[in-house]
Amino acid sequence: MEELQQRAQMLIEALPYIQKWAGQTVVIKYGGSVMTDPDLKAGVAQDLALLRYVGICPVVVHGGGPQVSEMMRRLGKEPEFIEGLRVTDAETMEIAQMVLVGVINQDLVSAINAAGARAIGLSGKDANLIVASKKTSLVGDLGQVGEVVSIDRTAIDLLTRAGYVVVISSIGIGLEGESYNINADTVAGDIAVALEAVKLITLSDVPGVLSDAADPASLVGELTLAEAQTALADGTVSGGMIPKLESVIRVVEAGVPFAHMIDGRTPHALLMELFTDQGVGTMIRR
Amino acid sequence: MEELQQRAQMLIEALPYIQKWAGQTVVIKYGGSVMTDPDLKAGVAQDLALLRYVGICPVVVHGGGPQVSEMMRRLGKEPEFIEGLRVTDAETMEIAQMVLVGVINQDLVSAINAAGARAIGLSGKDANLIVASKKTSLVGDLGQVGEVVSIDRTAIDLLTRAGYVVVISSIGIGLEGESYNINADTVAGDIAVALEAVKLITLSDVPGVLSDAADPASLVGELTLAEAQTALADGTVSGGMIPKLESVIRVVEAGVPFAHMIDGRTPHALLMELFTDQGVGTMIRR
Amino acid sequence: MEELQQRAQMLIEALPYIQKWAGQTVVIKYGGSVMTDPDLKAGVAQDLALLRYVGICPVVVHGGGPQVSEMMRRLGKEPEFIEGLRVTDAETMEIAQMVLVGVINQDLVSAINAAGARAIGLSGKDANLIVASKKTSLVGDLGQVGEVVSIDRTAIDLLTRAGYVVVISSIGIGLEGESYNINADTVAGDIAVALEAVKLITLSDVPGVLSDAADPASLVGELTLAEAQTALADGTVSGGMIPKLESVIRVVEAGVPFAHMIDGRTPHALLMELFTDQGVGTMIRR
Amino acid sequence: MEELQQRAQMLIEALPYIQKWAGQTVVIKYGGSVMTDPDLKAGVAQDLALLRYVGICPVVVHGGGPQVSEMMRRLGKEPEFIEGLRVTDAETMEIAQMVLVGVINQDLVSAINAAGARAIGLSGKDANLIVASKKTSLVGDLGQVGEVVSIDRTAIDLLTRAGYVVVISSIGIGLEGESYNINADTVAGDIAVALEAVKLITLSDVPGVLSDAADPASLVGELTLAEAQTALADGTVSGGMIPKLESVIRVVEAGVPFAHMIDGRTPHALLMELFTDQGVGTMIRR
Amino acid sequence: MEELQQRAQMLIEALPYIQKWAGQTVVIKYGGSVMTDPDLKAGVAQDLALLRYVGICPVVVHGGGPQVSEMMRRLGKEPEFIEGLRVTDAETMEIAQMVLVGVINQDLVSAINAAGARAIGLSGKDANLIVASKKTSLVGDLGQVGEVVSIDRTAIDLLTRAGYVVVISSIGIGLEGESYNINADTVAGDIAVALEAVKLITLSDVPGVLSDAADPASLVGELTLAEAQTALADGTVSGGMIPKLESVIRVVEAGVPFAHMIDGRTPHALLMELFTDQGVGTMIRR
Amino acid sequence: MEELQQRAQMLIEALPYIQKWAGQTVVIKYGGSVMTDPDLKAGVAQDLALLRYVGICPVVVHGGGPQVSEMMRRLGKEPEFIEGLRVTDAETMEIAQMVLVGVINQDLVSAINAAGARAIGLSGKDANLIVASKKTSLVGDLGQVGEVVSIDRTAIDLLTRAGYVVVISSIGIGLEGESYNINADTVAGDIAVALEAVKLITLSDVPGVLSDAADPASLVGELTLAEAQTALADGTVSGGMIPKLESVIRVVEAGVPFAHMIDGRTPHALLMELFTDQGVGTMIRR
Repeated sequence: MEELQQRAQMLIEALPYIQKWAGQTVVIKYGGSVMTDPDLKAGVAQDLALLRYVGICPVVVHGGGPQVSEMMRRLGKEPEFIEGLRVTDAETMEIAQMVLVGVINQDLVSAINAAGARAIGLSGKDANLIVASKKTSLVGDLGQVGEVVSIDRTAIDLLTRAGYVVVISSIGIGLEGESYNINADTVAGDIAVALEAVKLITLSDVPGVLSDAADPASLVGELTLAEAQTALADGTVSGGMIPKLESVIRVVEAGVPFAHMIDGRTPHALLMELFTDQGVGTMIRR
Repeated sequence: MEELQQRAQMLIEALPYIQKWAGQTVVIKYGGSVMTDPDLKAGVAQDLALLRYVGICPVVVHGGGPQVSEMMRRLGKEPEFIEGLRVTDAETMEIAQMVLVGVINQDLVSAINAAGARAIGLSGKDANLIVASKKTSLVGDLGQVGEVVSIDRTAIDLLTRAGYVVVISSIGIGLEGESYNINADTVAGDIAVALEAVKLITLSDVPGVLSDAADPASLVGELTLAEAQTALADGTVSGGMIPKLESVIRVVEAGVPFAHMIDGRTPHALLMELFTDQGVGTMIRR
Repeated sequence: MEELQQRAQMLIEALPYIQKWAGQTVVIKYGGSVMTDPDLKAGVAQDLALLRYVGICPVVVHGGGPQVSEMMRRLGKEPEFIEGLRVTDAETMEIAQMVLVGVINQDLVSAINAAGARAIGLSGKDANLIVASKKTSLVGDLGQVGEVVSIDRTAIDLLTRAGYVVVISSIGIGLEGESYNINADTVAGDIAVALEAVKLITLSDVPGVLSDAADPASLVGELTLAEAQTALADGTVSGGMIPKLESVIRVVEAGVPFAHMIDGRTPHALLMELFTDQGVGTMIRR
Repeated sequence: MEELQQRAQMLIEALPYIQKWAGQTVVIKYGGSVMTDPDLKAGVAQDLALLRYVGICPVVVHGGGPQVSEMMRRLGKEPEFIEGLRVTDAETMEIAQMVLVGVINQDLVSAINAAGARAIGLSGKDANLIVASKKTSLVGDLGQVGEVVSIDRTAIDLLTRAGYVVVISSIGIGLEGESYNINADTVAGDIAVALEAVKLITLSDVPGVLSDAADPASLVGELTLAEAQTALADGTVSGGMIPKLESVIRVVEAGVPFAHMIDGRTPHALLMELFTDQGVGTMIRR
Repeated sequence: MEELQQRAQMLIEALPYIQKWAGQTVVIKYGGSVMTDPDLKAGVAQDLALLRYVGICPVVVHGGGPQVSEMMRRLGKEPEFIEGLRVTDAETMEIAQMVLVGVINQDLVSAINAAGARAIGLSGKDANLIVASKKTSLVGDLGQVGEVVSIDRTAIDLLTRAGYVVVISSIGIGLEGESYNINADTVAGDIAVALEAVKLITLSDVPGVLSDAADPASLVGELTLAEAQTALADGTVSGGMIPKLESVIRVVEAGVPFAHMIDGRTPHALLMELFTDQGVGTMIRR
Repeated sequence: MEELQQRAQMLIEALPYIQKWAGQTVVIKYGGSVMTDPDLKAGVAQDLALLRYVGICPVVVHGGGPQVSEMMRRLGKEPEFIEGLRVTDAETMEIAQMVLVGVINQDLVSAINAAGARAIGLSGKDANLIVASKKTSLVGDLGQVGEVVSIDRTAIDLLTRAGYVVVISSIGIGLEGESYNINADTVAGDIAVALEAVKLITLSDVPGVLSDAADPASLVGELTLAEAQTALADGTVSGGMIPKLESVIRVVEAGVPFAHMIDGRTPHALLMELFTDQGVGTMIRR
């Protein structure tokens, strides 16, 4: 009986957060590195289903780098990177699309459906959702690596208004019909901006911004846009965190009120972020 | 951190129940005897707000007998009852309407609004919602005590579809424009039937059906319609429980799948009933 | 036969006025002092029903000062006023709400329904329709007398679009959930402005603006906004007419094209005003 | 002032009738013989406009026999009739269509627009509204005289729902694209049936069914379907009244609750019929 | 088989044009001089039906000068013109309306329906579509010749959105209810502007603008607005082409992107214009 | 000029077919064996785009057997078949899904978008579109080969009503979340039945039903359901045609009016079938 009471009490404590976010769009970037644990993935799917039921519109953009690399190796092709970007020849492009659209997206869709919501997967080729162009690089030809030219939100709106959770693979289509492999963080940001989302939440394998990269306890809970720009400029952040933070700053600058970097290895981190005051990870806001 | 995890876990455990009841109408009879504790009332209002946010349509019918009697005494009039029904002369009728519509309904509406949902109060006179006729009694003239002739669900549907929690006072209007005081349990049942609700939940100051009236531990968790009819016939239930059980049986017979009698003195009993397997109180089902 | 002809002719003569006002919102302030005659009240209800049927959207705001005072005395409490405003302690507040919402509003709703339209009563607490704050006074503490902070027209729009006549009690809700008693003329004006009404019509127990307060024949038929402001300034109007005229001027200044002060003691004064060229009472216009 | 009161009173007395017919479709057959007086025609147009404003959906089917005959004579062609039906060769057909669609329909449309409603004229060719086939006659070839094969109510519904008064010329279109001249009484009846109208009202130059054809005072106010059938069988009615009564009986048999034959020479006869208890002319009902 | 292939190929070649114009409104002025050949008329009707089926909204404005003159003569009245405009006394007005609305419009409607689309005819009197005023002329009183005061597109929009092809006769209604005969080219242009059409296409008995009026081979395929204005100023065009070109220039100046003058004597000229790159006749564009 | 005329004429000849099929759903099974020629594929995409523009709703179900086998071999796994069905272990399942959803579906979507329509790809996992169960076989365990349990048309309807061409991969989801590889002919048939399609058109590498399997000239143009059943029974058809014909018979028995087997190697065979009287290939009808 007491346990029932406690459970009811927890639901009631979530009420103010539900009210706060109901009717809003939240874009979630779900990274490839935190998809491998099936329990964690099932947990993310449950979180997404719950968000949908309490009236929030979650839109998911997923990555899948490790999975693409693995399939390349199975097909006898060694992955190659320039400044963290995958060099993408025609064969790599086909493998990337095949793995992202045909495996990872479908798995995520199935997991969300199993959690009781209704999900539909899209790639940037569906309905010409993500029009892209070739990304140029000073250090070498990246092949079919693209950058976003425009997002057409029509199909996403149609599906979210009808109650679906939309799951998007970061594949783009060029004006001449050519395929592009695009960084999923970038796509997630551009989609958050296009959908006028209230939040972009990035689920990856880091706890957030650390003031001391070696010390997980040095997690910075919140940064204003100005502080985040300063942290970049004065070297507070370093290594792989630099492009992540740059990406998030760009999104907040473009008008998304809140961007979060949270640890996807924590079970139900999404709910902990959305339904508590403390939140988890690092929040960047205007 | 652990507490956040636990909180998230509790939300996730509610997910199957949310899915089960989302989009359904649940009629709640909120009895006058369990309204006096302000904390309990605020809790009921929070429960109703939460139900609304997770996609359930709660419709509330309230009582208020003790409050009417108190106002009668303040105005120098002694309440009189015949077989548990209030003898209702013109003055009593005016006082009952004044207290139910002008005080109790408004207080409940305000509490629900304060909990973050949007509520609107109606009486059976609004939009001719409850058409009633004089109830005849073999033991004496009850005055303006009425029984339901018909329910017009149009206004309730309009408001619930627009997202409002509708709170209804059990006052009826006669075909000649005369006012009627109607038993709130009866009105709640008729409204549950008219709205094709999935559940009628009665919140009162008893724990449910007891197999031994003197022993609260003898609570019967669940009765089929047939068992409930037998319990009435063989004297398992007695006293004030008889009319309550009769009323609930009538509703289930009329097609409402589930009727619950739960203890309104338990904080958040509504959520405990809807969002756990055990439930609380007694459930009567087909 | 001739009488039938004449009746048909009268209907035809109303046609240009029906065309003029069809589809427009008209807010009617129905004063407590002109509610006591049941025939007059039935007449007002018929007028409102007719307006609704010919495509006009009437929204009613009612008063009820005398009725509140009477109930206070029945409960052993002497009404007290400061500069025409009722000093409102907690008990007075409860009585005022009980009488306005539970008696007067319901009676008016029933009368309109009896006249064949469909009416629904609301107070400012329903759907947080009227948010109010404490009115401060230099001459003393008025208690829970409020002034309007904001009007949320959503629920009114929903109901009028669905064909209902909305009847509003001038009770407001504070940001902390506290109750406020607000002057009904003020509420009617604010609602006329919020609904972008084409007209505010005040039904009270005076014939309109008199150039000689002692001479009912000195009725002024029409005043421009400028003339009305002058009449206030140069003392043409006096006594109880001053606040009434101030209130009406405020409404016209805020954009309502026409404000009328008409004599609610005349049967069907509303129709006479809306469906004839002469009109009745005094009209203030831009 | 007293006159204003009386006018308001007349409007109020119309209220029950407005309530009774609001939202219903009424088909009016407006005969060519009662169109010539411009004041009468303007009166009919006003009546139609008023019906529209009080929420009734009037649909008009007009005749025009005398006007067609006149134009034929102006073009040097003598009208010829077999059993009351106009023998219609190709030239007659063209003249009939030209006069009905190009003159009479347009005049009626303009008159209704001038009365403040919005009217649109249609012929049976527009949107293939009236599909017809050649009417065979035992006494001779009638040429392009048609009978109704089917009515497509789609366009009428679209226009009436958008608030227009639809005015229909009784021209039909054959399956091979050939034109047909159809009796307007027949078309009006078929359209009343197709639209599930509550009433068919025929405005012609007779007062209604007379029990003594020579005595206008012998007007029969009301006939049940059975009585009307008897009156036909036993010779109570005679002459030109026979086909009119037959036509009306057919419509009531097909499910239209009320059919009226009223005197179009009486100003505002339509309103007198719809808005008084006595009505005018003869009513046939189930 | 080869023929089937070729047919399929032709359809495919039309695809880019269908995509280009789908969802757009195209106003077609169909001149009286190119209506007399029944095969050509049937071809125009088929073209209009096809446009409708591939998602284009054609709106037709028709002329009928020769047909009006012929009927005038049949009725013993000699047509009279001042500067190309028909002097229109009351009788001429009635004849013009009768022929345009009652004959030509109906014939065109029937032809389009026979081609498988659904057409509805309107005149400027229907729904007060074309409000007009008397056109003054320096050289004499033209009688009831009008010019457009305003177009009310409401009814056209309602019908085109519901899938109908709207066919409009160039008859206008004055503010006092008087009838006006208006030049159909002018009406077509004003309607193209009012409907924000993408194109106005004029079908007449000339091939387009000729640089040498005597040489059909000197057809000018395309003129910018500036070039067209120059051609008028420097005398490149002469005779009857001057008012036609003036009218078209006015339309393009008012914002219609393309205006075409094409030869209505060529079968399916409409499709040739819309579904090929070369087009036919002369195009004037911004 | 003459060519333009001819082109226009061809369009006009398509008009009756466009009218016949407009607003109807046509399911197209596009076989893996006729996808390899890029020009043919572009042609199919154009055909689908054209169908969409002329108001037909094409829904595509694609196969991809050869492509799956090729990828299996690239990954070092030899395809194995039992009675024509691919034995599908977990690895094969993953490869099949990856190729069908991640490559073939996406390529088709891109080709349709390039042809100017808007396409969206779905698998049976999206929105739980195709619920399947394990197919049992007497001759051996087929692994994750499934048969359709139910089709949920909700998402398809949403997307087709919004104008999208939906492209479906024949992957199903089990009640326990397991993946199934389903025969695409079967899926196409079940979807045609579920969508109440007017036609199922199968595009494969055979010309249709041949009365003499060795003679392409022996093509049977049309078979009634009874004739098709006889042809199966009496051995007229043989070999690979047997399951194809069985599948088509099942669909026609289930209520789809027409099922076609046409040669996907013929350019624009879809248009030739839909827009000519002769059609191509074999039609089976009730």
